[in-house]
Amino acid sequence: MRYLRHTFAVIVLAAIAPVAISRPVFSDAVVESATQMMQAARADNHGYELLQSLTTEIGPRLAGTPAEARARQWAVAKLQASGFANVRIDEFQVPLWLRGEERAEILSPFPQSLTIATLGGSVSTGVQGVTGEVVSFDSLAALSAAPAGSLQSRIVFVDEPMARSRDGSGYAAAVAKRRMTAYLAAEKGASAALIRSVGTSSHRFAHTGQMRAVVEEGAAGIPTAALTAPDADQLQRALAYGEPVTMKIVMTPELLPPATSGNVIAEIVGREAPDEIVVVSAHLDSWDQGTGAVDDGAGVAIVIAAARALMGGMEKPPRRTVRIVLFGAEEVGLVGARHYAQTYASTLEQHIVATESDFGAGDIWRFDTRFGQDKIHLGRAIAQVLEPLGIAPGNNQAYGGPDMKYLREAGVPVVTLMQDGSDYFDLHHTPNDTLDKVPPGALDQNVAAHVAYLYLVANSRLYFR
Amino acid sequence: MRYLRHTFAVIVLAAIAPVAISRPVFSDAVVESATQMMQAARADNHGYELLQSLTTEIGPRLAGTPAEARARQWAVAKLQASGFANVRIDEFQVPLWLRGEERAEILSPFPQSLTIATLGGSVSTGVQGVTGEVVSFDSLAALSAAPAGSLQSRIVFVDEPMARSRDGSGYAAAVAKRRMTAYLAAEKGASAALIRSVGTSSHRFAHTGQMRAVVEEGAAGIPTAALTAPDADQLQRALAYGEPVTMKIVMTPELLPPATSGNVIAEIVGREAPDEIVVVSAHLDSWDQGTGAVDDGAGVAIVIAAARALMGGMEKPPRRTVRIVLFGAEEVGLVGARHYAQTYASTLEQHIVATESDFGAGDIWRFDTRFGQDKIHLGRAIAQVLEPLGIAPGNNQAYGGPDMKYLREAGVPVVTLMQDGSDYFDLHHTPNDTLDKVPPGALDQNVAAHVAYLYLVANSRLYFR
Repeated sequence: MRYLRHTFAVIVLAAIAPVAISRPVFSDAVVESATQMMQAARADNHGYELLQSLTTEIGPRLAGTPAEARARQWAVAKLQASGFANVRIDEFQVPLWLRGEERAEILSPFPQSLTIATLGGSVSTGVQGVTGEVVSFDSLAALSAAPAGSLQSRIVFVDEPMARSRDGSGYAAAVAKRRMTAYLAAEKGASAALIRSVGTSSHRFAHTGQMRAVVEEGAAGIPTAALTAPDADQLQRALAYGEPVTMKIVMTPELLPPATSGNVIAEIVGREAPDEIVVVSAHLDSWDQGTGAVDDGAGVAIVIAAARALMGGMEKPPRRTVRIVLFGAEEVGLVGARHYAQTYASTLEQHIVATESDFGAGDIWRFDTRFGQDKIHLGRAIAQVLEPLGIAPGNNQAYGGPDMKYLREAGVPVVTLMQDGSDYFDLHHTPNDTLDKVPPGALDQNVAAHVAYLYLVANSRLYFR
Repeated sequence: MRYLRHTFAVIVLAAIAPVAISRPVFSDAVVESATQMMQAARADNHGYELLQSLTTEIGPRLAGTPAEARARQWAVAKLQASGFANVRIDEFQVPLWLRGEERAEILSPFPQSLTIATLGGSVSTGVQGVTGEVVSFDSLAALSAAPAGSLQSRIVFVDEPMARSRDGSGYAAAVAKRRMTAYLAAEKGASAALIRSVGTSSHRFAHTGQMRAVVEEGAAGIPTAALTAPDADQLQRALAYGEPVTMKIVMTPELLPPATSGNVIAEIVGREAPDEIVVVSAHLDSWDQGTGAVDDGAGVAIVIAAARALMGGMEKPPRRTVRIVLFGAEEVGLVGARHYAQTYASTLEQHIVATESDFGAGDIWRFDTRFGQDKIHLGRAIAQVLEPLGIAPGNNQAYGGPDMKYLREAGVPVVTLMQDGSDYFDLHHTPNDTLDKVPPGALDQNVAAHVAYLYLVANSRLYFR
């Protein structure tokens, strides 16, 4: 059904191409409406109020915990109060991993404590801990090249730094270290592993984060933690003296029986094509140490505030259905995203376009798409409307956001409203990810961009495949 | 003896005043030598090398611990290697307070953990912790005004902020809150107390520090901790909902039997007036969570490097003795400073002038003195020599540094080479006080100023009382 309509639209467009080529994608009236909604959004503080409410009332909300369940109830209440339709929770089960005690110390030659964070999914050292000599590698590749069995009873230290960038491009390289060190080190015989935090700050916060997803795990790996950047520097300095450096590490995380997580969903039901779905999303869960203000309270606040502004800015609902999805269990391996794709597998063809806001609270500066090759001009037309917000047209290789993985792989067109993430990895996955890092007003530009984007795609007859 | 010579000098000066009034305090040759030593110091990296060595090899060095003892051995080795004379340790006993477990959580209405640091000298809650309703006060004065017994079984929260300033002037007001909250709250019946950290950063580090000095303690107070600034904000937001906020706090510090601390002393023996002492100092102990890079590894490095540069820059020793004093147990109540003043009580009259570097690694921008009223012009003359380093003449109410307290009270002239402390209280007494916060080269200006200052006062016949 959807496929037929899609095909029909392409045929019609092809037929009128000689005429349409000089016709603007969006009429002046549409651009005017979008612009008015952008302006109104910039003067509205609702996004920040939501972020303050979530981070204060719920705080940290690790996947599968009672706190994440409270966050779902918080979201349902906020979404219902704003007048969204079909507010619901799609529940699923998720591995429940809980941080325990975590301590590290250099025993010799320079006795002192170092600050670590156990990586998500790590096994325990047991309360007695693990003691061993530290062997340092400059990179994951260097560890990978070490001979099998060559690290028997050693503590591996992968001291690979991460580059700061506006678009977060340093993350993909660095995250491989976080995901794979435990398994590579285990293969070589190591008894525990440390990595330099995946992050860009020199403050003494260790950046946690998931190892190879629990749900995909084959091998159990070895106990693995992240050192703060200053502690990684310190350990490297100690090693530079050339004497053996011995450490003791104690980490007692627990992997408990699966627990309930869920995606929270709400809709503005489309007035003409209610089966055509425009997904705007964020993730509700956070890591356990901060209050998840930039990761991803900001995204939750932005998408709710933008969808609410869309409702408030239109006299009647948009043509298509706007679906807000607040994913659960993103941090522990995109569990909510997978559940969503499975649950709505039969309607993914009717998913017109989808995006996730999950890169903090920085201003959006670029609009990327992943549209059909003959639809790239539609993305440029959207970007042109967003231009007054300082947003430039981007590429057609949009990632869409982490929870867009399965939709993207299923061929759903995705867009990225690319935020300035220069400082994002200073805070990401640390205890320091708290509300004060997001100044009041910081979300307005994001909300404005999203409301205009939603208006353009949800109130149109355009297709992007 | 010293008094007679001092008096004689004053009489001579008075007698020649009509002639001397237009004569510069320092000859061109003296200014030239001082300037050369300043320039040489700016190109010398020894200060940074010392700081790196101390913070790496010793790390945290809390008063009375084995780590502080290792720091003394480190200092003795470094001072001997540099060729100083009379290198020695003056030992004394100090109360040994050790941090234990520390956890805080909001139980209702918004369950979540908060990040705290037990204040130095605090008593324990016991492992079972303390639970109670939080009562907030905007200031120590507001707490002080609460009726006796009005806070029975409550957890007091003093949410007084600290102002950022170049000269650290916000600290004196804020530190009263840290020193006195436990005792005032106990008087009103409270069972535990929290303060907003004495600090200026919004990073999620709690700033520890001593409560009313253990050595002066009359009352035991109640268990007291500092909240990080983000956590103080969070608690205040939770309180703003108007419902009772209940917290649980667990802190298990221990006050152990007195342990050994000590001052490390080294000298350049004066060639003409060896009994006349110029003291240049810093403190060797640090708090227990950071590696004490800015507090006060930087000061230790600056004064050792400057005294070494003085030796290296002169063909023969200065007229007077330059005495390096690296105080122990500063953080826990100026215990080393008091021991020094007692030990050398009989020679304090021969202490010509003294100073301590204990305000981080920022550039010196002002030269303050506490000289006799008719000697203020001598301070201005010294400041004039330091002017090429960007140092302005200051006031005559110099503090001299914390460990100068007893010398200052005994009438020893003190000076403050006032550093830019704008960022000092971002790091002060936190786990984040680590070497990476001091860029290589940051100490050079400090070392240069100290070497020129030492040359001017140690190689002269001037008196400052």
